[in-house]
Amino acid sequence: MNPKVGVIMGSTSDWETMKAACDILDELKIQYEKKVVSAHRTPDLMFEYAEQARERGIQVIIAGAGGAAHLPGMVAAKTTLPVIGVPVQSKALQGLDSLLSIVQMPGGVPVATVAIGKAGATNAGLLAAQILGSTQPEIAERLEARREQTKQTVIESSDTL
Amino acid sequence: MNPKVGVIMGSTSDWETMKAACDILDELKIQYEKKVVSAHRTPDLMFEYAEQARERGIQVIIAGAGGAAHLPGMVAAKTTLPVIGVPVQSKALQGLDSLLSIVQMPGGVPVATVAIGKAGATNAGLLAAQILGSTQPEIAERLEARREQTKQTVIESSDTL
Amino acid sequence: MNPKVGVIMGSTSDWETMKAACDILDELKIQYEKKVVSAHRTPDLMFEYAEQARERGIQVIIAGAGGAAHLPGMVAAKTTLPVIGVPVQSKALQGLDSLLSIVQMPGGVPVATVAIGKAGATNAGLLAAQILGSTQPEIAERLEARREQTKQTVIESSDTL
Amino acid sequence: MNPKVGVIMGSTSDWETMKAACDILDELKIQYEKKVVSAHRTPDLMFEYAEQARERGIQVIIAGAGGAAHLPGMVAAKTTLPVIGVPVQSKALQGLDSLLSIVQMPGGVPVATVAIGKAGATNAGLLAAQILGSTQPEIAERLEARREQTKQTVIESSDTL
Amino acid sequence: MNPKVGVIMGSTSDWETMKAACDILDELKIQYEKKVVSAHRTPDLMFEYAEQARERGIQVIIAGAGGAAHLPGMVAAKTTLPVIGVPVQSKALQGLDSLLSIVQMPGGVPVATVAIGKAGATNAGLLAAQILGSTQPEIAERLEARREQTKQTVIESSDTL
Amino acid sequence: MNPKVGVIMGSTSDWETMKAACDILDELKIQYEKKVVSAHRTPDLMFEYAEQARERGIQVIIAGAGGAAHLPGMVAAKTTLPVIGVPVQSKALQGLDSLLSIVQMPGGVPVATVAIGKAGATNAGLLAAQILGSTQPEIAERLEARREQTKQTVIESSDTL
Amino acid sequence: MNPKVGVIMGSTSDWETMKAACDILDELKIQYEKKVVSAHRTPDLMFEYAEQARERGIQVIIAGAGGAAHLPGMVAAKTTLPVIGVPVQSKALQGLDSLLSIVQMPGGVPVATVAIGKAGATNAGLLAAQILGSTQPEIAERLEARREQTKQTVIESSDTL
Amino acid sequence: MNPKVGVIMGSTSDWETMKAACDILDELKIQYEKKVVSAHRTPDLMFEYAEQARERGIQVIIAGAGGAAHLPGMVAAKTTLPVIGVPVQSKALQGLDSLLSIVQMPGGVPVATVAIGKAGATNAGLLAAQILGSTQPEIAERLEARREQTKQTVIESSDTL
Repeated sequence: MNPKVGVIMGSTSDWETMKAACDILDELKIQYEKKVVSAHRTPDLMFEYAEQARERGIQVIIAGAGGAAHLPGMVAAKTTLPVIGVPVQSKALQGLDSLLSIVQMPGGVPVATVAIGKAGATNAGLLAAQILGSTQPEIAERLEARREQTKQTVIESSDTL
Repeated sequence: MNPKVGVIMGSTSDWETMKAACDILDELKIQYEKKVVSAHRTPDLMFEYAEQARERGIQVIIAGAGGAAHLPGMVAAKTTLPVIGVPVQSKALQGLDSLLSIVQMPGGVPVATVAIGKAGATNAGLLAAQILGSTQPEIAERLEARREQTKQTVIESSDTL
Repeated sequence: MNPKVGVIMGSTSDWETMKAACDILDELKIQYEKKVVSAHRTPDLMFEYAEQARERGIQVIIAGAGGAAHLPGMVAAKTTLPVIGVPVQSKALQGLDSLLSIVQMPGGVPVATVAIGKAGATNAGLLAAQILGSTQPEIAERLEARREQTKQTVIESSDTL
Repeated sequence: MNPKVGVIMGSTSDWETMKAACDILDELKIQYEKKVVSAHRTPDLMFEYAEQARERGIQVIIAGAGGAAHLPGMVAAKTTLPVIGVPVQSKALQGLDSLLSIVQMPGGVPVATVAIGKAGATNAGLLAAQILGSTQPEIAERLEARREQTKQTVIESSDTL
Repeated sequence: MNPKVGVIMGSTSDWETMKAACDILDELKIQYEKKVVSAHRTPDLMFEYAEQARERGIQVIIAGAGGAAHLPGMVAAKTTLPVIGVPVQSKALQGLDSLLSIVQMPGGVPVATVAIGKAGATNAGLLAAQILGSTQPEIAERLEARREQTKQTVIESSDTL
Repeated sequence: MNPKVGVIMGSTSDWETMKAACDILDELKIQYEKKVVSAHRTPDLMFEYAEQARERGIQVIIAGAGGAAHLPGMVAAKTTLPVIGVPVQSKALQGLDSLLSIVQMPGGVPVATVAIGKAGATNAGLLAAQILGSTQPEIAERLEARREQTKQTVIESSDTL
Repeated sequence: MNPKVGVIMGSTSDWETMKAACDILDELKIQYEKKVVSAHRTPDLMFEYAEQARERGIQVIIAGAGGAAHLPGMVAAKTTLPVIGVPVQSKALQGLDSLLSIVQMPGGVPVATVAIGKAGATNAGLLAAQILGSTQPEIAERLEARREQTKQTVIESSDTL
Repeated sequence: MNPKVGVIMGSTSDWETMKAACDILDELKIQYEKKVVSAHRTPDLMFEYAEQARERGIQVIIAGAGGAAHLPGMVAAKTTLPVIGVPVQSKALQGLDSLLSIVQMPGGVPVATVAIGKAGATNAGLLAAQILGSTQPEIAERLEARREQTKQTVIESSDTL
C-alpha cells in the first residue's frame, strides 16, 4: 500500500526527534515513508519531493528541521497538501530559532506548527492521523481509543505519587 | 448546508484578527460557523462545543486566543478533530505569550499552530482548506488557483518598486 | 480531618518539582491531598475536581504544569477558590513557556503565579499557608516562626564564606 | 470599617494600571486603602507599612510596580500576609522585566503574581476577593455572581461578530 | 553595463526598508537591479533567479525578508555567490523572528546577515560594496571617502548638543 | 585597617560566583569584608548594613543576587554610596531574570550593574578598584599594571592556537 | 574649573536620552563636558578621548549608545577610570540589544551599566555623583538632600490617587 | 604566499569554535593566518591589525567573539575590507548576547554576521571563500564541488534512518 504520510527531515541528526512521529504512525497503522531532504543542501530534491507528493498519494507531509528551519515552509510553498512543521531543538537557542522560523509564515502559505522537540514530533504524528481521521472513521476510532487509554494511564499514575 | 469549519475565539476583541480566517473560507466557498467561546469565562460551553463538533459535521476547528491562550489546546483535549490555533497578538508581550501557550502542547494532544496575528488567521483559513482539500479535489483546485494568482501578483508587483 | 489544600499536577514527572510544596505543607501541619490531574489528558476529571473542591472543604488549590501549562488557568476557570500556579521547568524553553502560559491570564480569572521550578513549588506551599493563615492565627504563628528560623540560618551562614 | 485590602504602588504613574484592582474591590464591596509606597524612594515607609499591615487588620496586600519591581517582593519579606504582585508594563521591555522581578522570588518568600498590566490588576482585585472569600461566604457569592454575569456577556457577544 | 548586485525582497512592503540598500549602491555608483522575489509565493522564480545570477554577471545578492524569512537562505542554497540577508522588522516580534530565520543557517550554506531594518539595509549596500571593493580599488576608495566624510559629520555634530 | 569595600550576597550558594570579586580585591590589596545578607530573608539586617556602611568607612558596596534579585537595588535605596550589582546565574532563566531585576532600576536610585556570573563578579571587583582608584593613585597604578599584564598574556596566547 | 565627568554618546540622536544625565549633573553642581564620540564612525577619536581622560582631570565617564553599543566597553578598554554605560532604547529590539552589548563585558574590563533609556541616563548622572561623593562630602550631602526631597514628593503624591 | 584571510578571535577559548572556520579554509586551499586579538584586552593591537590588513594583502577578515562581542564591529570600524562576525556561544545567555552585539551594527559599518557557534564558524570560512570566489573562478569551482559532495552525502544518508 502507498504511504499516506511523508515524514522528512533536514538531517539524520533530526531522526532522534522525528522518530517519535513515526512511532505514532506505526502505532496507529498509518502507512508512511521517511526521508532526509534538506532545504539548504538538497534544494532541488526538496522541490521535487513537494511537487510530486500529492500525485504519489501522500496526503500529509511532516517536516522537521532546526535552527533557520526552512524545510517545512519551503515544502509548503510547493504543495497545497497540509504540511506539519516540527521545530527540532537547536543547540544554542534551544529551538526558539527553529520555532520562529517555522511558525511565523507569511499569509498565503501555512505550516501547521507543533511543539519544539520530541513532544512536537509525537504530536505531528497524531495531527497527521487526525487529518486523515477527519474522513477515515477507522483512524478516528483508533485515536479515540488511544485517548481513552492515555486517560486511564494518567488516572492510575496518581497513586504512584 | 452544514458548516465544515468551526471558527471560535476567546473574545470579540479577537474578531479583528480572526476575520481574516473567515475571509479565506468565504473566498474558497467553504461553509463555516463563527462563535465566541471563552476557555476561561465559558469553560463548559467550550467543552460542549468541542465534544459535539464532530457529530455536528465539523471537520476542522480554528481557535484564536491571546495571552495565556488556553482555548485551542483545551478544545483539542476534547476532540480528535484537527484543531488549528491562532495566537492573537497580545498587548504587553505582543503575542509571544499567546504563541507559546498554544504551540508548546504536551505529547498526546496536538494543536496545529500558525503565525501570530492576521497573517496567522489567514493561514488558519488556508490550512483548514488544505485539510479539507486533501480529500475534496474541488477545494484543492481552488487552492491551486489561488496560489497561481498570488504568484502573478508578486511577479507584477516587482515593476512598482 | 479533611484536606484544606489540593495539590494537583499535570503528570507524575512534575512530582519532583511539586513535592517541595507538599514538604512545606507537611512542615506547617496543613492537611492536603495530592493528585495527578491533566488538563489535556483528563479534561473532564479536571473540571470535576475544580467544581467539587470547595464543597469538599478545599480552601486553596496548588496546580503545577509545564510547557503549554493550562491546568492552573482551567482549574481557576471552574472555581472561585484561590488557585496557585507553579510553572514547572520545561525542557526546551526552560519554563518560560510554562510561566507565560500560567501568569498571562485574561482579566476575570486570576491565577496566583509563583517562580519557575522547585523554589516556586516551595513558595506555593507557603502562599497557601499564608492564605489560610490570614484567618487561622496558629498557621500565621508557624509561618512567623519559620521566618525567624530562616533569618537565623542566613545570619549564621555568613561565617562559612 | 477598616480596610481589608491594602493596594500600594511604586509611583502615581502606576495608578492608571492599579485603578483596575480598586474598581474590582469597589464592585465587590470590599473595604480597601490605596497608597503610593516606593521600595526605592521610601524604603522605610515600605517596611513600616508591611510590618503594621496585619495588626491594622489588612488581610491581603496588592502591590504594583514596574521595571526592577522590588515593591511586592520586599513587602512580602516583611509580612506573612498574602502579597499579590502586579507587574506594571514598562516602557522599554514592556513589562517582561517587571514580571521576572516580581515572580522569580527565592524559596521562602512568595509573591502571588498576576499578568502584566491592567488585566493583571483586575485579577489582583479578584484574587484578593477570592482569598477573603475562602472564609467569607458573602464574598464568594458575589464572585460566583460576577462569573455568571461574565459568562452571559460572553455568550451574548457571539451574536455581534 | 550589467548589474553587479542583485537586490531582491519578498514583498513590495519590504521596499521601504530595502530602498536604503539601493540608495547606498546609487551613491557609490555600483550597478544593481531590484526585484520582488518571494520564497513562499514564487519559489520557482526564486530558484531560477539564484541559479542564473552568476552567469548573468551578478557578484553579490542582497535579499531582504521578514517573519519566517526564508528568501536569503534559500537563495544561498542555490548559488555560491555571497548572499547578504536583511531581516525586515516584523509586526509582532519586531524582527527577532526575521533575524533568527536568516542568521541561524546550518553549516554549509552561509548568509551574511546584517542588522534588523533600515540600518541593516544600509549596511547591506555597504557590505556589497566592500566585497566588490576587495578587488576593485575605485570602489574601495569611494568607501574610504565615505567613511572620512561620516567621521567629519560626527565630529561636527558634537557642537549641536 | 578598615574595609573599604563591602561584598555581600543573598545566599551562601552565591559565594561560588562572588568569590571572583574577592579574589580581585585580594590581588589589588584592597581591604574588604564579605557577608551573607539576604533582601528577602534578613530584610532588617540588609537595611542596617546599608545605613551604617558609609559611617563604618565602606566606600563601595558589591552586592550579588540571583532570580528576583532585590539585594543590590534595596541596598542602593538605603545609601548614597556606589552600589555594584552582580547578577548571579539562575537555574531556569540563566540569569536573565537576575540581570533585569538588578539593572532596570527606576530613575533616582542607580545600581552599577555588571555581567551575569563570574565574569561579572570579577568586573565588580575591578570596578570597585577603579572607583577607589579615581582618587587613590596607587590603586590606579596597580590597575594599570594588571591591564598591561593581561595584554601580554593575550598576545602570547596567540602562539598556542 | 575642569570637568570632572565626561558625558559622551554615539550620535546626536542619543542626546534626547543622555540629556537626563547632564540635567542631574547640573542639578548637583558637578562640572562636566558633553561630546559626540562614535565607536564605529570615529574610532580613533574615541581611543584618544579615553586615553587622555584621566590626565585631563576627568574622574568618571558616562557613555551612552544603542544597538550593537560598543562605545562604553571600548572606552573602558582604554582607561581605568570608572565608565558608566547607558543602553539607549533601540528601534527594533527596544534596547535589549543595547543592554546586552554593554553589560555582558568579559572579565577584566568592567562597565557600570544602568537601565535602558532616560531612567538609566538619570541614574548614570547620579551614579557619577555617588562615585565622586565617596570622597567629596559636599556632593554626598547634595545627594542625601535630593533623596530626602524625593521621599517627600512620593509621600505627598499618595494624596493625588 | 601571503594569507588572504585573517582569522582573529578574542580569546584562546574561542578557538574551539573558530577552528571550524580554519578547517574550511584548509579544505578549500585558501591561505589564512590566525591570531588572538582582543577588543578589550588588546585594543591597540586590534586597531593596528585592522588598519594594516588591506596593505598586508588580507582580503577578508573573520572575527569571532562572545558576550559583549565588540571585536568584529570594532575591526569593521577600522577597515573597509569585508568583516565576517562569528558569535561564540556564551555561558549564561548561550550566544544571544554575542549575536546581538555583533549583528545590530549601526548604519555605516557592516559586519557580515553568521550563526552562533561552530556552524557559524564553518559558514564564516565558506563565506570568506565565496567572497574570494566571486573573482577567483578556481575557488568558486571548489565551492561548487563541495556543494555537490554535500548533496550526495545528504541523499545517501537517507538510507540510514
